[in-house]
Amino acid sequence: MGMTMANEWHLDVCFEQASLTRKQVKGRVVVVIDVLRAGTTLVTALAHGCRKAMAFKDVTAARRAAARLGRQRVIMGGERNRVLIPGFDCGNSPLEYTPKRCSGKVLILTTTNGTKAITRAAGARRILFAALCNTAAIAACLARAKCDATLLCAGTDGETTLEDIICAGAIVDRVLRTPVAANVFVEDAARIAHESYRSNRHDLVKALRESYGGRELLKVGMDEDIVECAKLDTFELVPVCEDGGARIVAVGRRT
Amino acid sequence: MGMTMANEWHLDVCFEQASLTRKQVKGRVVVVIDVLRAGTTLVTALAHGCRKAMAFKDVTAARRAAARLGRQRVIMGGERNRVLIPGFDCGNSPLEYTPKRCSGKVLILTTTNGTKAITRAAGARRILFAALCNTAAIAACLARAKCDATLLCAGTDGETTLEDIICAGAIVDRVLRTPVAANVFVEDAARIAHESYRSNRHDLVKALRESYGGRELLKVGMDEDIVECAKLDTFELVPVCEDGGARIVAVGRRT
Repeated sequence: MGMTMANEWHLDVCFEQASLTRKQVKGRVVVVIDVLRAGTTLVTALAHGCRKAMAFKDVTAARRAAARLGRQRVIMGGERNRVLIPGFDCGNSPLEYTPKRCSGKVLILTTTNGTKAITRAAGARRILFAALCNTAAIAACLARAKCDATLLCAGTDGETTLEDIICAGAIVDRVLRTPVAANVFVEDAARIAHESYRSNRHDLVKALRESYGGRELLKVGMDEDIVECAKLDTFELVPVCEDGGARIVAVGRRT
Repeated sequence: MGMTMANEWHLDVCFEQASLTRKQVKGRVVVVIDVLRAGTTLVTALAHGCRKAMAFKDVTAARRAAARLGRQRVIMGGERNRVLIPGFDCGNSPLEYTPKRCSGKVLILTTTNGTKAITRAAGARRILFAALCNTAAIAACLARAKCDATLLCAGTDGETTLEDIICAGAIVDRVLRTPVAANVFVEDAARIAHESYRSNRHDLVKALRESYGGRELLKVGMDEDIVECAKLDTFELVPVCEDGGARIVAVGRRT
């Protein structure tokens, strides 16, 4: 850390969950980034009318929650090894989460990466969720919070993934366009993410196709999802974690 | 990992020691990068005539090795909290390692980061050391090896540091200019490092001054070292680790 001036707050990026330190979490806002695809799906479902979301690591706990709330009141989403889970409504493609399907429902989402990130970010002042579709909304939220923040790239299978780092860089870019920019200290990792965003912003679809997460999706013919997840700032909404992940609510405007 | 084609080899970057995985080490060439300043010092000392180098974590072991070899036959270098160690010849500034001082001597170097990296890279096919001053030599070495390689950014005090990632990116840049470029699969992290190098290559001194490691050096008035460590490809020499770090020898041309 450099010297901290009054009113200065630090913006840091963690390139992969495994290397997240206590210092990057404690008392900070932590933004969990998962572009392909859970983050994009979560923002889309909330923007398209889901009242709230609940994240579960295992399928049994998700089924139990659905039964408790009433099967018709929920939309169950998630996948295991890119295959739909028996009895679930949707997989992990944001394109499935239409306003018709989402309106008024509670989203029950099983996501290994997401729940792992929530656990690692325990102790944070606040946990937000980001994808390329809501980077400006996240930046506005951070500018209001005016406190140290860590952008946590969720990654895929423990790999550092380009798409999440580009998204972190897009958030840095937008924060530096807010009125509080002069008070932001950009840590080295945040600068590197910003440089990656600037190198790739002119063709995000191409960059996502070439990323680790994108290559995995292309193998199973999911190019449509890549195109959808590459859309920048389509929603002015931020999912915020409450009760240690038991509840994720939307802050901001729905479409 | 994507599909591996025949003759294809992977070039990966690890942004900080703590997150290095077994997969990134086992059977691979690992390049330990420490621009500010141990890596630059090591390359400079070998280029300026040191016969070989020996890396030690603690000062007592370094003193014992010096006594065994004969005090006049060695040059003892290193520092603790940026202060010269009593009885040592030099600190950790590459500018101290002049040809007059180095010629024919064995360099006994105490370096916490360096020895930590050697330990973590145990199981690698080969361990090389890099700084900005020998990126082209490293790339030539990797092009000859034609096997998977991981560029390991040593970092400072457990922080991700810009200067080491820029150096990793410079190595990626040079590998992609070798005749084997078509066979290289650039992993996401290596691409991100490459983008960072390309964003900063026009003013490496400025980038190093702004980096975490550089800011720490500026606090204690060591701008001369930053300028020295920012010089690109001044040496055509690669330090190679032998016997688990007991010996580091130079491969390539001395000046």
